[in-house]
Amino acid sequence: MPDKKILASQLADRFDDKFHDECGIFGIYNHPEAAHLAYLGLYAQQHRGQESAGIVSSNGRKIYHHKGMGQVAEVFTEEVLKDLRGWLAIGHTRYSTAGDSALLNAQPLLAGFNKGLVAVAHNGNLTNARQLRKRLEESGSIFQTTSDTEVLLHLIARSGKKDFEDALADSLLQLEGAYSLVLLTGDRLYAIRDPRGFRPLAIGMMVQNQSLPLGPDLGRGETYVFASETCAFDLIGARFVGDLQPGEIARVDAGGLTRFRFAPETPHSFCIFEHVYFSRPDSQVFGRPVHASREALGRRLAREAPADADIVVPVPDSGVAAAIGYSAESGLPFRFGLIRNHYVGRTFIEPEQSIRDFGVKLKLNPVRTLLEGQRIVLVDDSIVRGTTSRKIVRIIREAGAKEVHVRISCPPTVAPCYYGIDTPTQKELIAANYSLEGIREYLGADSLAYLSLDGLRDAVSDARGEFCTACYTGNYPTKLVNIPVETSSRR
Amino acid sequence: MPDKKILASQLADRFDDKFHDECGIFGIYNHPEAAHLAYLGLYAQQHRGQESAGIVSSNGRKIYHHKGMGQVAEVFTEEVLKDLRGWLAIGHTRYSTAGDSALLNAQPLLAGFNKGLVAVAHNGNLTNARQLRKRLEESGSIFQTTSDTEVLLHLIARSGKKDFEDALADSLLQLEGAYSLVLLTGDRLYAIRDPRGFRPLAIGMMVQNQSLPLGPDLGRGETYVFASETCAFDLIGARFVGDLQPGEIARVDAGGLTRFRFAPETPHSFCIFEHVYFSRPDSQVFGRPVHASREALGRRLAREAPADADIVVPVPDSGVAAAIGYSAESGLPFRFGLIRNHYVGRTFIEPEQSIRDFGVKLKLNPVRTLLEGQRIVLVDDSIVRGTTSRKIVRIIREAGAKEVHVRISCPPTVAPCYYGIDTPTQKELIAANYSLEGIREYLGADSLAYLSLDGLRDAVSDARGEFCTACYTGNYPTKLVNIPVETSSRR
Amino acid sequence: MPDKKILASQLADRFDDKFHDECGIFGIYNHPEAAHLAYLGLYAQQHRGQESAGIVSSNGRKIYHHKGMGQVAEVFTEEVLKDLRGWLAIGHTRYSTAGDSALLNAQPLLAGFNKGLVAVAHNGNLTNARQLRKRLEESGSIFQTTSDTEVLLHLIARSGKKDFEDALADSLLQLEGAYSLVLLTGDRLYAIRDPRGFRPLAIGMMVQNQSLPLGPDLGRGETYVFASETCAFDLIGARFVGDLQPGEIARVDAGGLTRFRFAPETPHSFCIFEHVYFSRPDSQVFGRPVHASREALGRRLAREAPADADIVVPVPDSGVAAAIGYSAESGLPFRFGLIRNHYVGRTFIEPEQSIRDFGVKLKLNPVRTLLEGQRIVLVDDSIVRGTTSRKIVRIIREAGAKEVHVRISCPPTVAPCYYGIDTPTQKELIAANYSLEGIREYLGADSLAYLSLDGLRDAVSDARGEFCTACYTGNYPTKLVNIPVETSSRR
Amino acid sequence: MPDKKILASQLADRFDDKFHDECGIFGIYNHPEAAHLAYLGLYAQQHRGQESAGIVSSNGRKIYHHKGMGQVAEVFTEEVLKDLRGWLAIGHTRYSTAGDSALLNAQPLLAGFNKGLVAVAHNGNLTNARQLRKRLEESGSIFQTTSDTEVLLHLIARSGKKDFEDALADSLLQLEGAYSLVLLTGDRLYAIRDPRGFRPLAIGMMVQNQSLPLGPDLGRGETYVFASETCAFDLIGARFVGDLQPGEIARVDAGGLTRFRFAPETPHSFCIFEHVYFSRPDSQVFGRPVHASREALGRRLAREAPADADIVVPVPDSGVAAAIGYSAESGLPFRFGLIRNHYVGRTFIEPEQSIRDFGVKLKLNPVRTLLEGQRIVLVDDSIVRGTTSRKIVRIIREAGAKEVHVRISCPPTVAPCYYGIDTPTQKELIAANYSLEGIREYLGADSLAYLSLDGLRDAVSDARGEFCTACYTGNYPTKLVNIPVETSSRR
Repeated sequence: MPDKKILASQLADRFDDKFHDECGIFGIYNHPEAAHLAYLGLYAQQHRGQESAGIVSSNGRKIYHHKGMGQVAEVFTEEVLKDLRGWLAIGHTRYSTAGDSALLNAQPLLAGFNKGLVAVAHNGNLTNARQLRKRLEESGSIFQTTSDTEVLLHLIARSGKKDFEDALADSLLQLEGAYSLVLLTGDRLYAIRDPRGFRPLAIGMMVQNQSLPLGPDLGRGETYVFASETCAFDLIGARFVGDLQPGEIARVDAGGLTRFRFAPETPHSFCIFEHVYFSRPDSQVFGRPVHASREALGRRLAREAPADADIVVPVPDSGVAAAIGYSAESGLPFRFGLIRNHYVGRTFIEPEQSIRDFGVKLKLNPVRTLLEGQRIVLVDDSIVRGTTSRKIVRIIREAGAKEVHVRISCPPTVAPCYYGIDTPTQKELIAANYSLEGIREYLGADSLAYLSLDGLRDAVSDARGEFCTACYTGNYPTKLVNIPVETSSRR
Repeated sequence: MPDKKILASQLADRFDDKFHDECGIFGIYNHPEAAHLAYLGLYAQQHRGQESAGIVSSNGRKIYHHKGMGQVAEVFTEEVLKDLRGWLAIGHTRYSTAGDSALLNAQPLLAGFNKGLVAVAHNGNLTNARQLRKRLEESGSIFQTTSDTEVLLHLIARSGKKDFEDALADSLLQLEGAYSLVLLTGDRLYAIRDPRGFRPLAIGMMVQNQSLPLGPDLGRGETYVFASETCAFDLIGARFVGDLQPGEIARVDAGGLTRFRFAPETPHSFCIFEHVYFSRPDSQVFGRPVHASREALGRRLAREAPADADIVVPVPDSGVAAAIGYSAESGLPFRFGLIRNHYVGRTFIEPEQSIRDFGVKLKLNPVRTLLEGQRIVLVDDSIVRGTTSRKIVRIIREAGAKEVHVRISCPPTVAPCYYGIDTPTQKELIAANYSLEGIREYLGADSLAYLSLDGLRDAVSDARGEFCTACYTGNYPTKLVNIPVETSSRR
Repeated sequence: MPDKKILASQLADRFDDKFHDECGIFGIYNHPEAAHLAYLGLYAQQHRGQESAGIVSSNGRKIYHHKGMGQVAEVFTEEVLKDLRGWLAIGHTRYSTAGDSALLNAQPLLAGFNKGLVAVAHNGNLTNARQLRKRLEESGSIFQTTSDTEVLLHLIARSGKKDFEDALADSLLQLEGAYSLVLLTGDRLYAIRDPRGFRPLAIGMMVQNQSLPLGPDLGRGETYVFASETCAFDLIGARFVGDLQPGEIARVDAGGLTRFRFAPETPHSFCIFEHVYFSRPDSQVFGRPVHASREALGRRLAREAPADADIVVPVPDSGVAAAIGYSAESGLPFRFGLIRNHYVGRTFIEPEQSIRDFGVKLKLNPVRTLLEGQRIVLVDDSIVRGTTSRKIVRIIREAGAKEVHVRISCPPTVAPCYYGIDTPTQKELIAANYSLEGIREYLGADSLAYLSLDGLRDAVSDARGEFCTACYTGNYPTKLVNIPVETSSRR
Repeated sequence: MPDKKILASQLADRFDDKFHDECGIFGIYNHPEAAHLAYLGLYAQQHRGQESAGIVSSNGRKIYHHKGMGQVAEVFTEEVLKDLRGWLAIGHTRYSTAGDSALLNAQPLLAGFNKGLVAVAHNGNLTNARQLRKRLEESGSIFQTTSDTEVLLHLIARSGKKDFEDALADSLLQLEGAYSLVLLTGDRLYAIRDPRGFRPLAIGMMVQNQSLPLGPDLGRGETYVFASETCAFDLIGARFVGDLQPGEIARVDAGGLTRFRFAPETPHSFCIFEHVYFSRPDSQVFGRPVHASREALGRRLAREAPADADIVVPVPDSGVAAAIGYSAESGLPFRFGLIRNHYVGRTFIEPEQSIRDFGVKLKLNPVRTLLEGQRIVLVDDSIVRGTTSRKIVRIIREAGAKEVHVRISCPPTVAPCYYGIDTPTQKELIAANYSLEGIREYLGADSLAYLSLDGLRDAVSDARGEFCTACYTGNYPTKLVNIPVETSSRR
């Protein structure tokens, strides 16, 4: 029997056969409303994970924490925020796969050990977590979550180094894969980015116009902030200073901000998908405006794969920016031929007598009078399983379109991501299993074209090969030894 | 002390100084899941009112009802829908002003009287409700809501006509102002539109591919549906047949659909604001696609008020369609320079240490790298109080824009609406109180232009003067005698 | 399939085959926190109705209201209470039968008509409501609830008398049956009791120790309160002044309290069941402490129906007071042989593999070590359908009791109540259909005895025959012409 | 500013200055609805902890879990229970002090380590947890909760023993203090009681009348259950077999139930407070019916401290059983002079204009007509801070009582409990700081008497000195080295 309830999380801001993922992190040091700004900073990064959210704050002596299932505005009430006292804080917002969606895995993780109390929020995915976990369990560690992040806490606890920072650096060097981290000890904040720099982590600053009654040594009135994306800075009025470098640790304490490397220089592997789809267009990621990349993707796509058509129609919202680029380059008019419904609530009840393509229709309505008799260029940012794209092509045709030319603003997705984007397995990726013609036929499109890998690199100005393109090539920049842990859980 | 909680309803799909309005209605006859389709039909019309929702259904013998505060997906659970049995149903979704926002005014209204039980859902506003109410009270009627709609029920109850339909027609002729109605008696459905046709009401049909086990005489397998906007038909797969005519009643019963006039022909007064802002772009309203009107508004605006600028930026989402038209006509590139945040929850907590323009920033983020150094044409569909527009101009400037040229896709709003759109009082309407130059100065814009009234009429092809433009001219097509009732209430 | 969810309302404070009913009312005049005290006054009377609650307040000029489904503490939050401004208020708490359990019937009812705005809260049941309603509908009234109370509002509105009080008195004289009422007009409070005095209504007073910043003429610092039961006064610290007399109206306005008769003297019909079961033991009802009546019932029962047994065990909580009386009179030790579980939540989920007598076991656990081998006198206040009593006898036997002697502290319930207590129909009343021996056998008891009617009257000192005993005799003190209205509704 | 919201948890089943405590545990092996019966078993033990609840279940291969804040019926919905699959389960219900009330400490704890996955639920308190934790942290363990229980998991993980049971026994021997435990590994259930037997743990059995489709080797149709109190068995229809012995481990696996000692015989230290107050009267605890102990306490108290009075009145519900005993022994009549309100919801809002003794009045109402002019023996089970007792004495006097003689059914509480009962610190215990006369004066009582220690021991038949009476004597049976951990948290 089909499930009659359609979870909004399956619909919320992207389709249910796209990428659900992953995490947004935030850190703030020296602000009288640290937790409240963390809440705003997470809110601005809500698109990076809608399943759970958490904040850990500190007044330098005592640590406060709260986490829960749901979106930021649901998890934190005014009362909860008031109780999250102190002047430094870290926060986390998260999506994850069904298997480990439990509250138990919500972050920040908080643990006490021989070097004090530490809280950590993690964006990314470790590729040797399983190995490390096995080794740690063998020597007597216990694991209370299925999250990779817990491994790091154990490594720090077990490190031979007495000093926290030495132990931290020591432990980080044992990790493989993707990690952007913010850590909070009682009175310090750390921000860390893995040596390859898979995930972004930006540094921001605010200068208070008054001296603040904070901790003993904190008269200087400077607030430091860290976030996965710079859009978090815009909301709270912080200034974007620059990216934390791959392999770098930033420490903020009473002496201000100190940055140092914990790892030797390594080739970079910036996640190209942050530019293709994942980041907000108003963020600057890896030193580059996302909207500019997306428009460039569309322009390049128009050059590589022109179409003899009447109008350019995006799949909203993911295909909008590329469609604008395509339209600008091709000269074909840009039209909102699919209207997105913004009122999708938490759950939606399907009628017994099933309506064809119900899930997609709930979200998108074709504008018949605009599409009728037209030849359409339909622009989207990716095709994953193909099921939703197929439904969209169908409803456009049923609205009277004469031709549908599907244009995708990146190469075919042929390999799962192991660095923090929740792609389905290879078996489920349509482009890993079918030819271009096969996919076109499945979609029911008149033509189908993807952007080339060169075009993609060009669009993000990746002259030096600093981007990871594993999902389009299968060439993973690190060893892969991770195997999922077998416990199950429910919310 | 300012209120620290920002209600999502103030932000949800439009800005808090814009139009909160009004109502969407839906009716369905002869379908085994009548209430469920009503739920979907209301959902598709959620933009017409997010404050309360209700459905009344019937199996021809017994009437079932449920209403509640909130959006459709919150008010109706699977369990509730199951209990709304029967094969005919009407539904209502509503926004209303603070004073009478109570559940008590949620619709459909349901009453028993000498002609049986009747439920009614109303979109519009009566301009002689106060007068009628006074007269009815004088002769012994009691009022349990502050809604105009209750007046109609009393008139029917008190009509000298014995037959329900005679009494109905008799009562309607006493009403002045705007009303599109769906009524349900035990086994009949009525749809009604006022003689001037202020509000839309569309007729749709579905043909069941099987014979349905419904009421005794209902073998024919035809389902009739009615909705304020045709987008409701698209979601449930119904076919748009045409508009109910002004002054017309449609009755659906075991004999099928019957249409007849209850009022003589009168000049029409279609609400032009449905095309400017209120309806969904994918609807056909007053026989005309809304998206086409909006693009035409933008094109016309570009011709009337060109700007020496670099890019065209819409205020999302209300200004998008007109901005596309402006861009197409002017040749200036269209860019999403303001990113809208779709994750605004029910309430949002403002920090103590207030962030400038917090409310707007929560909803819109300027894309600095796109705006910096540019001359911007900022397109929106209207300016009401001006406070939000001013904030938007400011954040665009702070993002580095060199010039901001505000272009509004309709004439200045100088008079409140008394036909169902919730505009503020004249005192609060900036254009009713300031000159063009005064408004420009207040907004902090480099230039400001509104579309002309002729341009507006042209864009909606109003050759015959069938549209009401009272909000732009103050020329009301009916007498105005309504005075608000003084009771207060809370949710 | 049996329903797996057991509603707490079926269990909450009494068993699901007992009396659910009915209403508690409260009124307060001249207090700066009128609505808040109404909330407390309703809370103290929560046992009189747990299904919905409502308060209407006024500051003399403007009326505020809120009602909702659920218990008092659920319906009213701090925010809601703050919004219920003013210095006079009325409140209502309600249970009702399934058919009309909707929010729509929640009270107070509020209506506007030719004599202004009036809110009313009603405890009782009219026996000619159906007749009156028919007559009113015939002359053009519309009904928006299925509640009797709405009839009164229509009668006042249609009264030929111009003055509100004249119209009120005029209307009351047309009502038959049971009604204790509190009414609020903008600046006045009325309390009313039907001429037979079926339901209680008590008057209380508080003297403020400071002069209050209230309405213009209200310097006097006296607060008047009204409640169904005096326990409401105890919680808020008001002094019980005396009962409102049957056929009396009390008006409180700027001139203080005025009492006058609206009806000639009539024989009284105080509900004896208020003393047997319904009222709280700490209330004084009809001028007499309830706990004293209950103990007297038990003592009298011990004399009328002694048992050769070892211990007296009450069915908690309803049988406790009578059991103490029985024990005191008989000399048999009183023991809590059944432990009541106070943690019954809103719903409780039954296991698939059904547990025998699950519903009763959730609420009551027999104390095996106390019952084992003993001869038990089991005291309860009534047997309605007999199903629960049968289960209780069974679990006591299964706990090892040697003999179970059931003693009921009133006569057999043979006729339904039409004056405000929600008894099942005669067909469902076991005592209306079976002999004493038949009931004993059904219960599986070793012996069974009810209190005699004389004994009952004696216990409440009813020398003058002022009590209604219709449920035990079928002799109704008024004509009965009510027929239920056929609309259906859901919460 | 005083907090206007009174948490129901402060009122729910005991007063807010009494003991908030502690935990109830439950385990079940071999039942097709294991989690559902665990839910019922926890529900029956709800009085042992209302703050959080959790269940871990298993089908022998996969582990399912859910926990949340609130009472059992709130934490578990039908949907949640359905997802907790399998045929063995453990559950936990918990109260705890403010400092560590977070969800993070909710049990069962679940961890993976070198010996597999294990879940544990703990009732009690370790007195060397701090020491063990420090030692574990020093050797590299991390702690994610502030709960004692986590220590045990680490000890097992780090044990040199390869076999799980050897490691378990090894680890238990390192613990000092109170622990009754249920543990679940994938396909086994363990129940454990500390060598002194501070906390109860009962064994029960059910025999299924059908063969169940469970794990491979489980044809035998016997279900084993464990619970803190036997009342849990009554609800689910299980038979009480006997207590688990102090120092004993019970293992249930495919081979059935096996019991063995893990610790040498030690003097016993049964918590006497389980009989005085904590356990339900219908439970058998430490081989003895609780109701019998309580009645004996009251009888003995009547002999030791007679009063020249008219009636015996209990503080409901805690003083009821002892008051019955006192009445029976003294011949003074037992009367419910204080009526308890059962409708206290989650939060209750106090009026601005404070009502004297508001919190107590919300819960208890004195029956004026019963108390007036009487000399009262007021029986309660303990006085902790004295503030609530003082309020109760005051409201009894204000209701007109002539004399109030307070009788407490145990000795003065002079020392905090470190074995799992949440008593306040010594500084807050009135009896630790004031003389008998001082307490009497503070309470405003005419006389005050406590039961003697000998009387207490006698009442529970403690001939062999097997009970811990540290709270009355300060003689702790174990070394105390625990110091609270300094992290703070919120729900």
